[in-house]
Amino acid sequence: MDFHVIKRDSSCEARRCRITTLHGSVETPVFMPVGTQATVKSLSPDELESLGAQMILGNTYHLYLRPGAERIERLGGLHRFMHWSRSILTDSGGFQVFSLAKTRRIEEEGVVFQSHIDGSRHAIRPEDAIRIQNQLGSDIIMCFDECTAYPVDRAYVSDSVRRTIRWAERCRKAQNQPAQALFGIVQGGVFGDLRKLCLEKLMEIGFDGYAIGSLSVGESKEEMLGILEAMLPLMPGDRPRYLMGVGTPEDLVEGVRLGVDMFDCVMPTRNARNGMLFTWDGDMQIKNSCYADDGNPIDGDCTCYTCRRFSRAYLRHLFMARELLAYRLNTLHNLHFYLNLMAEMRKAIESGTFTQFRRHFCARRSWNKASI
Amino acid sequence: MDFHVIKRDSSCEARRCRITTLHGSVETPVFMPVGTQATVKSLSPDELESLGAQMILGNTYHLYLRPGAERIERLGGLHRFMHWSRSILTDSGGFQVFSLAKTRRIEEEGVVFQSHIDGSRHAIRPEDAIRIQNQLGSDIIMCFDECTAYPVDRAYVSDSVRRTIRWAERCRKAQNQPAQALFGIVQGGVFGDLRKLCLEKLMEIGFDGYAIGSLSVGESKEEMLGILEAMLPLMPGDRPRYLMGVGTPEDLVEGVRLGVDMFDCVMPTRNARNGMLFTWDGDMQIKNSCYADDGNPIDGDCTCYTCRRFSRAYLRHLFMARELLAYRLNTLHNLHFYLNLMAEMRKAIESGTFTQFRRHFCARRSWNKASI
Repeated sequence: MDFHVIKRDSSCEARRCRITTLHGSVETPVFMPVGTQATVKSLSPDELESLGAQMILGNTYHLYLRPGAERIERLGGLHRFMHWSRSILTDSGGFQVFSLAKTRRIEEEGVVFQSHIDGSRHAIRPEDAIRIQNQLGSDIIMCFDECTAYPVDRAYVSDSVRRTIRWAERCRKAQNQPAQALFGIVQGGVFGDLRKLCLEKLMEIGFDGYAIGSLSVGESKEEMLGILEAMLPLMPGDRPRYLMGVGTPEDLVEGVRLGVDMFDCVMPTRNARNGMLFTWDGDMQIKNSCYADDGNPIDGDCTCYTCRRFSRAYLRHLFMARELLAYRLNTLHNLHFYLNLMAEMRKAIESGTFTQFRRHFCARRSWNKASI
Repeated sequence: MDFHVIKRDSSCEARRCRITTLHGSVETPVFMPVGTQATVKSLSPDELESLGAQMILGNTYHLYLRPGAERIERLGGLHRFMHWSRSILTDSGGFQVFSLAKTRRIEEEGVVFQSHIDGSRHAIRPEDAIRIQNQLGSDIIMCFDECTAYPVDRAYVSDSVRRTIRWAERCRKAQNQPAQALFGIVQGGVFGDLRKLCLEKLMEIGFDGYAIGSLSVGESKEEMLGILEAMLPLMPGDRPRYLMGVGTPEDLVEGVRLGVDMFDCVMPTRNARNGMLFTWDGDMQIKNSCYADDGNPIDGDCTCYTCRRFSRAYLRHLFMARELLAYRLNTLHNLHFYLNLMAEMRKAIESGTFTQFRRHFCARRSWNKASI
């Protein structure tokens, strides 16, 4: 993996970079749609390409359980399995073990848990997480970590962070696939000193990129921004910085301002399936009866597939009738909104106008939120 | 609506015709995918066009209940509402009132029933069915009829057929939209003389096309073929002949042999969502574990979107994981199979080789069925 800073904003930490993997170049700041089970829910790979998705995220926990990583390896790897020719990042499975598995026991050696699908028992050590991601053949793989909840007491996080660091060391040793970049994950909850300790130790071990985990898990926006403001300046400038699992459109803009290069989040896709649509003028619940006779598109200025063809009335009808096409058309719109927002931010950084862009975006979104 | 016979097969009743509506020409024999709620489940209109769908079927009963025919009219009609620029045929709602509504009472005046969605009470008279279809703005509309069940006693069918004829007369009088063709529906269950009586009376009234209803509702294949063999030669040769709600690939081939021009059926789309895939070499249940490691496409010779990109293993994975993309990729394949089968039959009739085509098709399908 190659990483290259193209331009820095003069008035904030926003930066325009390029990551190059075996599957092409990724212009950052980038948002990665989440393709949990080897599919970004409801979309074809061709649609993802048309939307301008450059890299997607696959979930190691899900793919390990079903259909199995050995199976995907035998079938030629995750790219081939799901017919996606651009870049893929896989998480380590850590977050899902802690959020989805039925029961779990954390030991120094690794994690023992029961599948949320069939209750079967599994053990994943850091070395297993790496091997599974090797089998999947993703372009960027993540260290196995413990994602701490919120709120949680400091003593627990302190122990957990130190174990995550030891696990990161074992991951680094286990990873020997030169085609795959390995990222470390900074943990530490809302405790700045533990976050700093974690980052320092990860930098000593040395990774191809650094991620911030366990944010947007319940803490306040102020706490999240505080952690980002404290941590991002300490992270190596010559490596990608990845904010995991975040967030709202506003979170993306703030993250970019503070120097984040990569994001992923289920919000655009999951909210789409719940009928919540993003627009520059605030967010829309398509099931609201006020849209029943509304012949306008979701957003008259939007150039997505959905907005160029269908009315709010039709989208509301599909959603109320629980038609499969509803989830897809809503997903196309929301991902277009997210990916377009990233493209606009990249352009703004390139032209040195990111601060104006951010002011305009936040004012328009919050003005409209206030007026709805 | 214009109807024109292009070529007749010399060894059977198969014929190659063209229907021309305001929304373009429809080459027959034609299969119409079912778009019940203003969407062919899981597919976009662009995908339907790419598949070669020429005309789709909309369900009056569903659209009347949700989102409402007046609403669709206000929004510019069904074509515009669902962004479909080719032809649409709507059924009259009769079949769904009898198969879906919670309670129903048939009177001379019409049918009183309760919605399957919310239990609300509704009354549809033949004149209402026409008005609703006028509001939807479909290219071909159908008479309001009673679809009789199977088995059912002769006395009931005899009364029912006579009422259906009286309703057809009222529909003919109520229909005054010159842009919409009106088809009569031949009822009469498995009773040949009642079917003949119905057809004669409908021909006296005079319709733009004639349909055969209430087949494939439980009777044997022999009974169905018997009715078709008896009725099709009596139907006017200068009008389209439409076999409603039928059927399997074999049914389509037999129907074409006997002179049917138009078909519709939920089988390719519904079976797709249940994981049943059609191929020339027999049908496939994609959930079967034998496909878990199968890197081949559903059908190596198939040129559909799904077969050109994805393995059986991937499709099985999506289906087992209940991923939305599963339903769509399976639907694309099955509709491709059906629409391609019709295209192959049209070519065979044009080149005078329909009988050979039929023999080859049936032998290959049944040989493989026998060998599975």
